[in-house]
Amino acid sequence: MSKSETTALTAAEIQKMLDASPFNLFLGLTVVSADPVKQEVTMRSAMRAEFERRPGSKQWHGGVIASVIDTVGDFAVGMMVGRGLPTVNFRVDYLKPAVDTALVAVSRVRRAGKSVGVADVDVFDEKGALLAIGRGTYSTLESK
Amino acid sequence: MSKSETTALTAAEIQKMLDASPFNLFLGLTVVSADPVKQEVTMRSAMRAEFERRPGSKQWHGGVIASVIDTVGDFAVGMMVGRGLPTVNFRVDYLKPAVDTALVAVSRVRRAGKSVGVADVDVFDEKGALLAIGRGTYSTLESK
Amino acid sequence: MSKSETTALTAAEIQKMLDASPFNLFLGLTVVSADPVKQEVTMRSAMRAEFERRPGSKQWHGGVIASVIDTVGDFAVGMMVGRGLPTVNFRVDYLKPAVDTALVAVSRVRRAGKSVGVADVDVFDEKGALLAIGRGTYSTLESK
Amino acid sequence: MSKSETTALTAAEIQKMLDASPFNLFLGLTVVSADPVKQEVTMRSAMRAEFERRPGSKQWHGGVIASVIDTVGDFAVGMMVGRGLPTVNFRVDYLKPAVDTALVAVSRVRRAGKSVGVADVDVFDEKGALLAIGRGTYSTLESK
Repeated sequence: MSKSETTALTAAEIQKMLDASPFNLFLGLTVVSADPVKQEVTMRSAMRAEFERRPGSKQWHGGVIASVIDTVGDFAVGMMVGRGLPTVNFRVDYLKPAVDTALVAVSRVRRAGKSVGVADVDVFDEKGALLAIGRGTYSTLESK
Repeated sequence: MSKSETTALTAAEIQKMLDASPFNLFLGLTVVSADPVKQEVTMRSAMRAEFERRPGSKQWHGGVIASVIDTVGDFAVGMMVGRGLPTVNFRVDYLKPAVDTALVAVSRVRRAGKSVGVADVDVFDEKGALLAIGRGTYSTLESK
Repeated sequence: MSKSETTALTAAEIQKMLDASPFNLFLGLTVVSADPVKQEVTMRSAMRAEFERRPGSKQWHGGVIASVIDTVGDFAVGMMVGRGLPTVNFRVDYLKPAVDTALVAVSRVRRAGKSVGVADVDVFDEKGALLAIGRGTYSTLESK
Repeated sequence: MSKSETTALTAAEIQKMLDASPFNLFLGLTVVSADPVKQEVTMRSAMRAEFERRPGSKQWHGGVIASVIDTVGDFAVGMMVGRGLPTVNFRVDYLKPAVDTALVAVSRVRRAGKSVGVADVDVFDEKGALLAIGRGTYSTLESK
């Protein structure tokens, strides 16, 4: 990336972009940190009843976890590029049921290239247990 | 699979299971067809404001599309096995923005084995244009 | 893609490109068909002792199958674009052991866009049983 | 995993298993380290002419890199379980061309469960630049 550190998105800018998106608002994502030197973004999402796989289970539906992963990975690469990005594809692996906990999702940029960027996302529960992992590819091409 | 065709889940049974899940209810999934001979399940989901990537854009957030893919693939393999299944992992590729349309998601079982099943999911708009594709692995092990 | 059908690579051209690559030569890939209207390329690879997972087993090592998938998917998208392409990423799912058989790999283009293309690959044994499936993303950007 | 550390495969045992496999021998994999406490396995593979994408380019064909990733990930989970394992599926992302270098592949176990294990693999050149990343799911079920 030719983008210098100073043009990277800040946590406040990412939060503002999240809050302008109806579905991201539904996910209730809070930016915990956005570090362009470590190329790492961390977000947190609290459980809500609509996220449940089964009523009363307090277990997160996998689709919500996948949505969190897609979004956090997007903004990790996007932080480096200075804007939100279209997702090309992503993979999610579920390691452990997510029950009665907020999610803490940490995304690390693995590459921020001229046409695509790649980010890894680790999703933890509040006690630090690893629940799910994601890996996404995002388009970094300037639209003309 | 040792499961005979007669033990496969019906469309009505899948619909009932969907409607018992808060997040699947939020997704608004309707079972269009469930064919155990073709090993294919089709669902439909209508746009709602909460699904938008940006307000007023009528564009589906990718996370919602991923959630639909995960769920339809799950019930395609689940239909053959006779119950809902934990997702092991899945991949989503976005091919075209999904704007101002309902989604029609068609899942085809590629394998229904004793420990895992694999399903492909094609997501179309109402005119039949391909918007996104998914591929998921689901655990078919009996829990003890 | 703005590429017209007439500029698509022919089976003979794809075969020539394969045979110019040391590792593709090692894979022993033969182009069976290359159809730009169906956007489908089929290749065949015969078993050889070096491909074995265990000596004398006649079972293909998964890495060889993955290599075949990557290559056939690459040339399916490449056929439409008129040249070989860098792989961005791909996924392989193994469905059934590949034992004592040639492989027949059929790749279908799911999208051939201006920056990336996506292809699916189904790998069969000689009797038509499905052994493995792949899905790859390839860069279609013109290098400057 | 109920497997205790003492039953984990050693580097020498993994090397012996690799050397008994014709295709792994072709890949020329050397076990650099196998650490069951860190749940990490590192292997190295030297370039050879048969691995080239184009003759004289000294560039690794992506299929060889994918094969290395599949194998190192397999033995990372396998180390914890005490045996080689069938791959369920894996994903490879290519970040940078691999030219005129040996590969150093480091795999870390992300989960070693009763039915599946998941491993990440980072592939570096000799100078420590990241070339490719992989993520695989392996079957850990005891065969009956």
